[in-house]
Amino acid sequence: MTDGEAPGPAIVALGGGHGLYATLRAARRLSSDVTAVVTVADDGGSSGRLRSELGLIPPGDLRMALAALASEDPDVATWTDTLQHRFGGTGALAGHSVGNLIIAGLTEVLGDTVSALDEVARILRVRGRVLPMSPIPLAIEADVVGLESDPRVSRTIRGQVAVATTPGQVRRVRLLPPDPPATPAAVAAIERADLVILGPGSWFTSVIPHVVVPELSAALEQTAARKALILNLAAEPGETAGFSAERHLHVLAQHAPDLRVDDVLVDSMSVPAGSERDHLCRAAARLGAVVGYADVARNGTATHHPGKLAAALDQILSTALLRGNREPQASHTGREPTSWQ
Amino acid sequence: MTDGEAPGPAIVALGGGHGLYATLRAARRLSSDVTAVVTVADDGGSSGRLRSELGLIPPGDLRMALAALASEDPDVATWTDTLQHRFGGTGALAGHSVGNLIIAGLTEVLGDTVSALDEVARILRVRGRVLPMSPIPLAIEADVVGLESDPRVSRTIRGQVAVATTPGQVRRVRLLPPDPPATPAAVAAIERADLVILGPGSWFTSVIPHVVVPELSAALEQTAARKALILNLAAEPGETAGFSAERHLHVLAQHAPDLRVDDVLVDSMSVPAGSERDHLCRAAARLGAVVGYADVARNGTATHHPGKLAAALDQILSTALLRGNREPQASHTGREPTSWQ
Repeated sequence: MTDGEAPGPAIVALGGGHGLYATLRAARRLSSDVTAVVTVADDGGSSGRLRSELGLIPPGDLRMALAALASEDPDVATWTDTLQHRFGGTGALAGHSVGNLIIAGLTEVLGDTVSALDEVARILRVRGRVLPMSPIPLAIEADVVGLESDPRVSRTIRGQVAVATTPGQVRRVRLLPPDPPATPAAVAAIERADLVILGPGSWFTSVIPHVVVPELSAALEQTAARKALILNLAAEPGETAGFSAERHLHVLAQHAPDLRVDDVLVDSMSVPAGSERDHLCRAAARLGAVVGYADVARNGTATHHPGKLAAALDQILSTALLRGNREPQASHTGREPTSWQ
Repeated sequence: MTDGEAPGPAIVALGGGHGLYATLRAARRLSSDVTAVVTVADDGGSSGRLRSELGLIPPGDLRMALAALASEDPDVATWTDTLQHRFGGTGALAGHSVGNLIIAGLTEVLGDTVSALDEVARILRVRGRVLPMSPIPLAIEADVVGLESDPRVSRTIRGQVAVATTPGQVRRVRLLPPDPPATPAAVAAIERADLVILGPGSWFTSVIPHVVVPELSAALEQTAARKALILNLAAEPGETAGFSAERHLHVLAQHAPDLRVDDVLVDSMSVPAGSERDHLCRAAARLGAVVGYADVARNGTATHHPGKLAAALDQILSTALLRGNREPQASHTGREPTSWQ
């Protein structure tokens, strides 16, 4: 889209890390009114070091979301590249990404993370917004089985890195502090959205955290937006090793019993035809959702292809706008054929 | 000045640290065509740590010069404040200024310091330019007496911090590597300047280094610009402890025997009337310069007042433009009465 055009439908993407990055790369093709609502429980790498040293919200997933939505003009690209650049070597700065340090500095100067992110977004000419799901740094705690010789014994594992890499099986996650506040602008964005996207991403540490923040959970229940859940292309080693597609839905529903979803978007190849599709259909129905299959994978990888994912989301969006009797706010970029124009 | 006006006379300020910052705060009142040519021999603090960890030109003095020339619009002020912000605490980042980290990151991404500085300048809407005096990091080495029981014995002291804080008396400084290259754009800026300003600042570590870079020294000899030397308001503990104003000129001339200067600008109160003024007059004459006295101090401090310094420089500039039969390129901001309009 170019300046002067209407922004397009309001899309909100909930997630974190590389999964959210993929969703945002797709969503930006459909609208410039895209709000990312990002997990803030990371305790690893550059983010973890900044969090423990400076007491700030871990900036890494926020930085990646900003990069995903940045303008692609060459003068902005220099800054996007710099934001994503990591210092090398073996010194005190090794592994820190420049963008994390900029977000940290702006947060200290401006006094809050949301203002800092808006300022980076202005420089990157992000059309849309990147918000932390909570205004405070959070921790993830999980009940994990399979770590003891008795497989029924559950142990508590704390910290995103520890949960994401546990050799055990995650049963349930919690946020610390319990019932954390949501970022008010994130709640408002969900309430006014045309389409809310949940996932893909690390299921227990990037997707489920959003639905256990009470105000986000309530906003998801109340919004008139169409709600789409994008399943991962494969189970992840560590937190979802061995999980079927169906089980991803089960554990989500366990954490948010009142959550209703309209669409579950699944890559055609990742769940071939057969009994697994039947199981998935029934699990989706319990969430109130229908399953949509589409080719959304980057060929030969377990990552989503932005163009293919955008086409699938555009189909969902057109249904959302028709169903809600809403007028689309602008034509999309027109790459893929759709029905809602 | 506002957009659309001519930039004003071309002013080049050579120096480093707080002295250069003061000159730039004055020069920006007279023109938006201001080029800072900045020392790159710092080895202390955040700059020194970045230099040794990443092998980059020390960014601190460059960052301060950018801040001095930044737009004062509120949206830019947020970034200027962030550039100048230092992380606190006791961790790996403590003491690092955010701007130093940004310059370091941009330099790694873009491959050279000049491009990185131009990019920061664009974001800060600097009208003018900030350049390193050399494209490579330099070291300062000094011959210092008074460190042994025999006061005639000279010892070699290496490093800007060591030289600036030596309890001995600095006799001579050298740059390492010897005869370093100048930044080509800095040479070009001096050649096309209307006014070149040298000093104030740490004499041996921020002022004299410029005149021992062969290409800068040659450009200073060849330029048609009026050349003004701004003396410090007081001797500095460490490198110039006990130095008279006259002696500042002597040591400069020792390092650059062919350097000619048109004006030596001295704060009226720092050299009261009497024999010291006579000595200073003779020392200036040996450089080809006349001494101009003006009230340029911030009341009660040893730092220059930007408005007062601008008024004095405006007087020098008007003479420069009349003498050289050059047309001023634009009216200045008109705060102080001048004769060159």
